[in-house]
Amino acid sequence: MVKAKKWILAAEFAGEPKDSNFKLVEEDLRALKDGEIICDAVYLSVDPYMRAHVFPVGSCIIGEQVARVTESKNADYPVGCLVQMYSGWRSRTLINAANKTATEAVHLLKVTDLGKLEPSLALGILGMPGMTAYFGFLELCQPKAGETVLVNGAAGAVGSAVGQIAKIKGCKVIGFAGSKEKCDWVKSLGFDHVFNYKEADINKSLKEAAPDGIDCYFDNVGGSFTSKALQHMKEFGRISVCGGISVYNDTKPALTPDAFMTILSQQLRVEGFIVTRWWNRFPEGKAVMKKWIDEGKIKYRETVKEGFENMPQIFMSLLKGANIGKMIVKA
Amino acid sequence: MVKAKKWILAAEFAGEPKDSNFKLVEEDLRALKDGEIICDAVYLSVDPYMRAHVFPVGSCIIGEQVARVTESKNADYPVGCLVQMYSGWRSRTLINAANKTATEAVHLLKVTDLGKLEPSLALGILGMPGMTAYFGFLELCQPKAGETVLVNGAAGAVGSAVGQIAKIKGCKVIGFAGSKEKCDWVKSLGFDHVFNYKEADINKSLKEAAPDGIDCYFDNVGGSFTSKALQHMKEFGRISVCGGISVYNDTKPALTPDAFMTILSQQLRVEGFIVTRWWNRFPEGKAVMKKWIDEGKIKYRETVKEGFENMPQIFMSLLKGANIGKMIVKA
Repeated sequence: MVKAKKWILAAEFAGEPKDSNFKLVEEDLRALKDGEIICDAVYLSVDPYMRAHVFPVGSCIIGEQVARVTESKNADYPVGCLVQMYSGWRSRTLINAANKTATEAVHLLKVTDLGKLEPSLALGILGMPGMTAYFGFLELCQPKAGETVLVNGAAGAVGSAVGQIAKIKGCKVIGFAGSKEKCDWVKSLGFDHVFNYKEADINKSLKEAAPDGIDCYFDNVGGSFTSKALQHMKEFGRISVCGGISVYNDTKPALTPDAFMTILSQQLRVEGFIVTRWWNRFPEGKAVMKKWIDEGKIKYRETVKEGFENMPQIFMSLLKGANIGKMIVKA
Repeated sequence: MVKAKKWILAAEFAGEPKDSNFKLVEEDLRALKDGEIICDAVYLSVDPYMRAHVFPVGSCIIGEQVARVTESKNADYPVGCLVQMYSGWRSRTLINAANKTATEAVHLLKVTDLGKLEPSLALGILGMPGMTAYFGFLELCQPKAGETVLVNGAAGAVGSAVGQIAKIKGCKVIGFAGSKEKCDWVKSLGFDHVFNYKEADINKSLKEAAPDGIDCYFDNVGGSFTSKALQHMKEFGRISVCGGISVYNDTKPALTPDAFMTILSQQLRVEGFIVTRWWNRFPEGKAVMKKWIDEGKIKYRETVKEGFENMPQIFMSLLKGANIGKMIVKA
């Protein structure tokens, strides 16, 4: 009998996640049937969206991982082959790789075409966060050369990619991040203006960096940052609402100045999205991002922490901004 | 020397408009030069947007009117011909109808193609409010047959048209208006559910009328109505932000529950607009609306009040909901 571990939600999140929200449980995996495989986690993803997602107490905490096949009764997935899947915070997963329904549920994919790149990138710049930046920015903001783009969470996995894509598209890019080290890195990526939101006056910074206003705003942060940013949008500006890390821990919706009158007077288009709407186009997005990486046009960074047992702590540190680039847990 | 009267802004609006915001002044019109005409106001439009518009103290209050040419030095605009133009709250206007720039500034048009219909409709269902409904709803909400549409201000010039267009497109339509008489009329237009927002519990009404949620929301009202409506939007819902009559008199932006997290989690698309973005397509929109009126598919109503001297009072009553359908001032 093979043992596996998983992190389950022990109590619903309320405010900042704490140790008591998480429980590590062990389970026995049964013997494999035809078509099934067992995979051992190699890299696990922790992402801010996990805080916002609502799922039942007692269920495994959601998330994607890169795993290696360690037992196989499926010739298409031999032992040693690398896969990625949304199997949650599990050290070891038994899955029927031949069953289309089961496979779709966890979006099982082989990790391929990375060349010399680390497989962890399948969870970052060449995975969900990269696609979030690629589609969420290009499809919803529809940036044009010469336009001014604002992105917050600019040192995160998504924000750092958005700003670089905007530069590739010929835009002027303004980024906000939360420490000097982060700002220095973001600046090195080619952003035109970078501010530390913990120190800078946001209104003053935006007025200085975008005196004529902002055409595209890619929002990872929400809350009071967004209320301020809204006042700097140009007529016909586009806002892609990707996340709200500043408000995920709020226990009820904060009161903010009415956004709709600004949306009206400036004729803004504001759209929220979850990246899975573009699942079918991921191969296209990954191919373009891979090409840009190979050409040196997109740079990335990972913050790799060790230990499946440490996942709750690593996740909680992520929500406090401990990462530069993509936060990865090495199992 | 021909005399003319105009209403100017005597003091910036602050809170509810009051008599002291308006001043009636007389002016002398000079003799006509080649290409110029003088037109006498026949019908003047008062619309909620006039409250939201910011313009300098001392200038003529903005607005469109239907006027009759009473003197002419332009063969294209003979005496007796009807025009419409954004010349503001003026009893009599001198304008160079041959000067493209001047003409564009006030969007001078001949009133034509109305058949047996009253020329005042050029300010309503076949004019700006009708086009606001037609383009603002169809272009931004992109309704599909079978979808559920919510519109507030449903007894107004715009809202009543939006609901009927939605019915033509095969949607289920929920309307909110502010009196029994208004609700009865809106119901007679074919809306599926109509509620009096002054008496009904908005959340309960929406839950009852749209148990599966709202696909398209056409917002004329803003404020707390919108905060509630947001919670009933279906995933991938579209919101067309047309107006905010409930908040126009606010002296500073009200605090409302953060809309962005709902926009995110439901993947909503919210777009504000000013109808002038579709100027070039007005002929197309007017032709379709005219056809629908001729076929009996679109009904309209006007609240006609008399007296150029009474414009401020009529406008103030409009902001308090005194109109059913389009509010018109007969000069």
